[in-house]
Amino acid sequence: MLLYGYFRSSAAYRVRIALNLKGLAYDQTFVHLAKLEQLAESFAAINPQKLLPVLKTDSGQLLTQSLAIIEYLEETHPQPALLPRDPLERARVRALALAVACEIHPINNPRVLRYLTGKLGVSEAQRDDWYRHWVEEGLQAVEQMLVASPQTGRFCHGDTPTLADLCLVPQVANGRRFKADLSGCPTVVRIDAECQKVKAFADAAPANQPDAE
Amino acid sequence: MLLYGYFRSSAAYRVRIALNLKGLAYDQTFVHLAKLEQLAESFAAINPQKLLPVLKTDSGQLLTQSLAIIEYLEETHPQPALLPRDPLERARVRALALAVACEIHPINNPRVLRYLTGKLGVSEAQRDDWYRHWVEEGLQAVEQMLVASPQTGRFCHGDTPTLADLCLVPQVANGRRFKADLSGCPTVVRIDAECQKVKAFADAAPANQPDAE
Repeated sequence: MLLYGYFRSSAAYRVRIALNLKGLAYDQTFVHLAKLEQLAESFAAINPQKLLPVLKTDSGQLLTQSLAIIEYLEETHPQPALLPRDPLERARVRALALAVACEIHPINNPRVLRYLTGKLGVSEAQRDDWYRHWVEEGLQAVEQMLVASPQTGRFCHGDTPTLADLCLVPQVANGRRFKADLSGCPTVVRIDAECQKVKAFADAAPANQPDAE
Repeated sequence: MLLYGYFRSSAAYRVRIALNLKGLAYDQTFVHLAKLEQLAESFAAINPQKLLPVLKTDSGQLLTQSLAIIEYLEETHPQPALLPRDPLERARVRALALAVACEIHPINNPRVLRYLTGKLGVSEAQRDDWYRHWVEEGLQAVEQMLVASPQTGRFCHGDTPTLADLCLVPQVANGRRFKADLSGCPTVVRIDAECQKVKAFADAAPANQPDAE
């Protein structure tokens, strides 16, 4: 398999963790988001959404949207499982994942930040406040979801990593890069630290990618 | 089952379509988003994310995040199926759904719009331009995904409704409300019209909800 990614793309980071946890070999090709390589015609031909990641399967299929890719990997390579078996538990894990993937990450996507500073003439300081606002508010909601449930364990759901952790860890990394205040979400911080002890997560970290700057 | 919703909430709209398609009976209770009822302590106790929808199961479990709710309904009430059986096809349907649910909808969430006009002092005209920009850009990407694939049929994937249509139709409705230009996405417009012919979709429309204004 071939992953189109970028060391700082947190959606690509989720897929890297999934591939590593499942022990699946993959090559990487890099699309430099800060240089806007994702807007090039050549990349739009691969993904008209002009977004990372894209996973090219061994049969040449191009899969987009990190959560769809991870569900595909889960269905085709079920072990180790990234979702519990019980439907209610699966719903909880998916809700935690989407609380990051839908409610935090898209609002801080580079193209949204460019619209703020470009078309709306927002200052860089205001843009960074925006970034931190959505990370802090969003992760505090995740914190409350985690604290409220006896199913929270070493990780977001029980004692093995799930799709929820795959979304949480890259979001925490991005939040820290923008100096978000995570003091309101100690459980999130604890689970992030637990994940960092797992080689599959550590190997997927931005700093450990070949294109890291 | 009990659905916490609001007639104009497009995420609740997705779940209403799913419940209708699967022929599942449900009651509704309404949280008036424009009156900010979702920010009340009483609702935060139900969903700390302060977002709609919430589905209360017959056993009293509170499920959040529309896509997690729909996947739960799919797993517990498999017929009629809202996802194909083949993993690659499921990945395509989920990617189309997420191209709306992650890349368009969150950026135009009411809390984001309030931040723009409140904290950033953006004018109402600029806010509406923002809204239209993300709908038009996002639906044009969906259009290209649809046009590029022979799997597109009467609906987004084949000739029966899937999760992709459940996300697309509410987004088109929201886009039209803000007068987005949909001339760049004729396939999206065609599929939306096909969906409107299906009673489960029509019954779920905002105008047909008891709390419609």
